[in-house]
Amino acid sequence: MKEHSRRMALDIIERIKRIDPWLRAFAAYDPVQIRDAVENAPAGPLQDLVVGVKDIIDVFGYATGHGSPIYRSHHPFADAACVTLLKRAGAICAGKTVTTEFAFFRPGPTVNPFASDRTPGGSSSGSAAAVATGMVDIGLASQTAASLTRPASYCGIVGFKPSYGRYAAAGIKSLAPSFDTLGVMTRDVATATRTDAVLRGPIPSSASLPPLAPKRIMLCRTPYWDEAEEATRHALSESARLLGMETDIVEDDLPSFADANLLHLTIMSYEAAQALAWEFTERHTLLSPQIADLIEAGRIVDYTDYRNALVRAEDLRARIAVLVPPGTIILAPAAPGAAPCSVSGTGSPVFSRLWTLLRLPTITMPGFTDSDGMPVGIQVLAPFGEDDALLAHAAWVEARLPSRPLPPTYGDQA
Amino acid sequence: MKEHSRRMALDIIERIKRIDPWLRAFAAYDPVQIRDAVENAPAGPLQDLVVGVKDIIDVFGYATGHGSPIYRSHHPFADAACVTLLKRAGAICAGKTVTTEFAFFRPGPTVNPFASDRTPGGSSSGSAAAVATGMVDIGLASQTAASLTRPASYCGIVGFKPSYGRYAAAGIKSLAPSFDTLGVMTRDVATATRTDAVLRGPIPSSASLPPLAPKRIMLCRTPYWDEAEEATRHALSESARLLGMETDIVEDDLPSFADANLLHLTIMSYEAAQALAWEFTERHTLLSPQIADLIEAGRIVDYTDYRNALVRAEDLRARIAVLVPPGTIILAPAAPGAAPCSVSGTGSPVFSRLWTLLRLPTITMPGFTDSDGMPVGIQVLAPFGEDDALLAHAAWVEARLPSRPLPPTYGDQA
Repeated sequence: MKEHSRRMALDIIERIKRIDPWLRAFAAYDPVQIRDAVENAPAGPLQDLVVGVKDIIDVFGYATGHGSPIYRSHHPFADAACVTLLKRAGAICAGKTVTTEFAFFRPGPTVNPFASDRTPGGSSSGSAAAVATGMVDIGLASQTAASLTRPASYCGIVGFKPSYGRYAAAGIKSLAPSFDTLGVMTRDVATATRTDAVLRGPIPSSASLPPLAPKRIMLCRTPYWDEAEEATRHALSESARLLGMETDIVEDDLPSFADANLLHLTIMSYEAAQALAWEFTERHTLLSPQIADLIEAGRIVDYTDYRNALVRAEDLRARIAVLVPPGTIILAPAAPGAAPCSVSGTGSPVFSRLWTLLRLPTITMPGFTDSDGMPVGIQVLAPFGEDDALLAHAAWVEARLPSRPLPPTYGDQA
Repeated sequence: MKEHSRRMALDIIERIKRIDPWLRAFAAYDPVQIRDAVENAPAGPLQDLVVGVKDIIDVFGYATGHGSPIYRSHHPFADAACVTLLKRAGAICAGKTVTTEFAFFRPGPTVNPFASDRTPGGSSSGSAAAVATGMVDIGLASQTAASLTRPASYCGIVGFKPSYGRYAAAGIKSLAPSFDTLGVMTRDVATATRTDAVLRGPIPSSASLPPLAPKRIMLCRTPYWDEAEEATRHALSESARLLGMETDIVEDDLPSFADANLLHLTIMSYEAAQALAWEFTERHTLLSPQIADLIEAGRIVDYTDYRNALVRAEDLRARIAVLVPPGTIILAPAAPGAAPCSVSGTGSPVFSRLWTLLRLPTITMPGFTDSDGMPVGIQVLAPFGEDDALLAHAAWVEARLPSRPLPPTYGDQA
């Protein structure tokens, strides 16, 4: 083993051993596998970058626990397609990161890196906390309602959820296939861009997109604005001010999209009741009340109501495509405010359901804090399929917003 | 064990033992598990119906082999969602049916029930042959290009591929997620309708749809008509004659959709290269030349070309929705002709790619034979989401076409 590899593996393991006992971002990690991974990593565009994989995604050699006691001993036969793509591009897998149960609401043990009594957000809790504290460079995450945007906002990091369908889903547990979207968490836009270039296609490619000013910014408080707290209101207006000095800003809160969140819930509950049919039927007693309630709700949705919701969702997608032409970005809240105390769960999904329903690519950008110093992000969105443009615009945004807040643990690793 | 159950289990096992050594439709079956399944089946809308499950779909207790030596020892942790739904509705799982490798082109050992030197079609080879010979009542099957329509046509049975997304995909191996669609094979439309009512939703429901005449029939020879052989030309014109005596028939061969098959291939190869990234990277020597070639083709597709193909496919879907309003059915070829000899593979997908790209629900109807007595089917299609209407129209069609041809083995079981 070369000296560089030996030192890198030691650094990764030492950092996890120092931070994770307190943070609890990892569902599992294994020093032997980490050393193997470092030693055997091929040269590639993600060389020397460390990845944490959300525990609904298969990594050979680790159980895929799905945050559920049902799957504690479930060892996958193969790597998920996305994991293979990352490994083939040179990235090092450090282990599995904590997810809420089946990427829904029952929290795992992870705490917020900025305050141990606060939630890191969910469901991609472990990946967000691990990225924020520097234990990993890339966190694989997913979103069906608000599972990527919200923890990225609460942990003060960059969270990129691409257009629906951009990355391969093979080897990832499904919750509601109309919405399930794999995405990435990083500390800067450049790393998200490099990771995207690997995940989007079968051939590893290296990519950097120069910062690009959007033609137009649409400020969208959304129809749910009355749920926004002061910290989020400030983050959004301050972002608009900082970016608006250089670009026209138009306002549209999309009031006629107000039923989007309810449509999302109808579709999600119906599909979850289908996707988790085995767990519900054969392992009922091992489900949490949260997921059992979701499935029960889905079981009483009438098929015609579900179909109508799908049709209405398609209609809203067609309408947003007209309202938001290529070259435009949308600025929107990422969450009602900073991370709430853990006793109240993983926080509200209210500011993400709409965008998840619309399947738009979104990137959560850090840069703001509330009066307690807790991170508050904003969302930047683009038209469907305009992922490359969004990443280039996000680099432009990143250069104009305050830099991300650093958790107390982050300085330790220097 | 009640007398009825004991006799039913014996019948299922005896039939398989008599027919399958010659037909080779099963990848695996286990008398002990069949007896257990019969004994423990709950009352429900699919009571006493026997199911064969294509071997890319997880059934607990059996390996899921995907038709590949890579997965020979792959034992799934749980039933696929669709399998749970069927079991919960009272159906009996008889075992796993042969698939081509990863539901692509390399054939398995199954032969055509009408002639042992002919292909049963692929990729759902085993389910089609098992349904045709009466070993099972319902065959779970799937289609990414022509994997359900073609074997249904070659084996003289009913094959229902619903609108894309109608059934849950959890626990089914993915080949190209833009197209992968679970469907069912049966010997009559009524059984397909009952099975659909169970698979489409989380609550088992019983259903029968009275035969319903369509408002209009569109005769579509497709842009690929010059590949149709005499037997298929006869089946289509004879169907049009038999049905047209009661309903208006308009003709449209969709010449402006001629690029659909190429678009399908572009998207499918790109997505297969993503979905099978692990197999390609880590188990390369165990892949067949067929699947390796597909992945190699996908790896050199440019991402922008792939995206453009997706956009063009959406455009074609919007156009077919305008051309084919609800109440209309399309009559189209199911395959170029009867099943070819096995040496040439599983037959041409030319008459299905277009419809799979468009994501329309389709039902293959038997009733015709070529000059050698080999089955030749036709396709009946409906607008996206009009699955219930399609099944009702198919019952109307069924009553007007000749009855399905019976394979020599079928009479044996009486």
